[in-house]
Amino acid sequence: MKGRLYVIGMGPGSGEMMTPQAARALEQCQVIAGYTVYVELLKERYPKAEFLTTPMTREEERCRMALERAAQGDITAMVCSGDAGVYGMAGLILELAQEYPDVAVEIIPGITAACAGAAVLGAPLMHDFAVISLSDRLTDLELIWKRVELAAQGDFVICLYNPASRTRKDYLAQACRIIGQYRSPQTVCGLVRQIGREGQEHRIMTLKELENWPTDMFTTVFIGSSSTRKIGSCMVTPRGYRCE
Amino acid sequence: MKGRLYVIGMGPGSGEMMTPQAARALEQCQVIAGYTVYVELLKERYPKAEFLTTPMTREEERCRMALERAAQGDITAMVCSGDAGVYGMAGLILELAQEYPDVAVEIIPGITAACAGAAVLGAPLMHDFAVISLSDRLTDLELIWKRVELAAQGDFVICLYNPASRTRKDYLAQACRIIGQYRSPQTVCGLVRQIGREGQEHRIMTLKELENWPTDMFTTVFIGSSSTRKIGSCMVTPRGYRCE
Repeated sequence: MKGRLYVIGMGPGSGEMMTPQAARALEQCQVIAGYTVYVELLKERYPKAEFLTTPMTREEERCRMALERAAQGDITAMVCSGDAGVYGMAGLILELAQEYPDVAVEIIPGITAACAGAAVLGAPLMHDFAVISLSDRLTDLELIWKRVELAAQGDFVICLYNPASRTRKDYLAQACRIIGQYRSPQTVCGLVRQIGREGQEHRIMTLKELENWPTDMFTTVFIGSSSTRKIGSCMVTPRGYRCE
Repeated sequence: MKGRLYVIGMGPGSGEMMTPQAARALEQCQVIAGYTVYVELLKERYPKAEFLTTPMTREEERCRMALERAAQGDITAMVCSGDAGVYGMAGLILELAQEYPDVAVEIIPGITAACAGAAVLGAPLMHDFAVISLSDRLTDLELIWKRVELAAQGDFVICLYNPASRTRKDYLAQACRIIGQYRSPQTVCGLVRQIGREGQEHRIMTLKELENWPTDMFTTVFIGSSSTRKIGSCMVTPRGYRCE
């Protein structure tokens, strides 16, 4: 029999945004692998499964563990926060799966932080948008700044993942300065922290304010296009359905 | 008492990807409004609700109907396919809601076609990406082409919504030609049609092949970056976790 590995996006938070498709796959699983924090949330819900965890930076090890177990015949899940296909594990699993021809991999999508964070702020992503990670752990920093600049030039709404970490405290400020060459300092921006978790916070502010705002790796940042506005307490990018 | 209006992303398809958060909100609703096709899918599941529908192009009318009913005290939902915040109704509802100060609006996110389609193809969105709609019904065509060109220059993976309609048969070809100025004709591309519905189809092909491929408004298109590859039968954009 072929082994089976599900790569599952749990959505943000603790399961309120996890789809029935994802839940049904997890119910079948004998083994659930993932980054420690996310897997903790599932232990109560799936008490019969065996849980495999590795810390944040050991992605390849975590994926190989899951593929090995699937190859041995256990129905296995690799879980990711948000969507497994957006800065998650889906890509690496598919690359490594070439070495495990007996394992059938199925990717199950989840709600990514761009969509969940947008819903908290209002409707910032109603028009064309670019999603960029400011983490340079796996990407050349020059390419990141180039993308930020081109997205700014194209008047895309910009959604930034991983805006800061202990070692990248000033990256968001740098991104704001680049964007500020093309957009007003009054551009409407927003950020959401700990989406879907206890202690979720959000705030709408100007690009100028955002430049000096402290953020961390649990924050998702939204930078409005030239048409994004603050409507009541919401950040909204009108799509043009109204005659304006 | 304040009226309540939920703006709900159902995810693609018929409910398998709709979150528990969305389902719980719908269970409470006395009135469910939406575009005819999507609402049909919900009639069986929520038999007690009253359903309000309008055809595709009557967005403002549909939103006002929902806001009116919420203002009258009915717990009301406006449902959208995919995510209500990505080319959906969330923005227009929030704009119009200014005229209905007694209605509290809550946006409930859903899985958008970019994420659901990516999962069908493999993992094309593992790295920075741009989402662009090729519909010029509400957007200036020049701005669309400018964004396509800048996204191509930035080596973003590009996800195209609304790649074609009866009156825009050649827009995808035009987008491919613009992108072809910056990327090889062999660039790995993919498309997914009727995501999550019966008759779902997908195909991986080169940028050159995509240029002449017939598409429609039920199709989501993915154009790889320079690092996107075909791995087995999947479209994958490696993130760089492996030492390559």
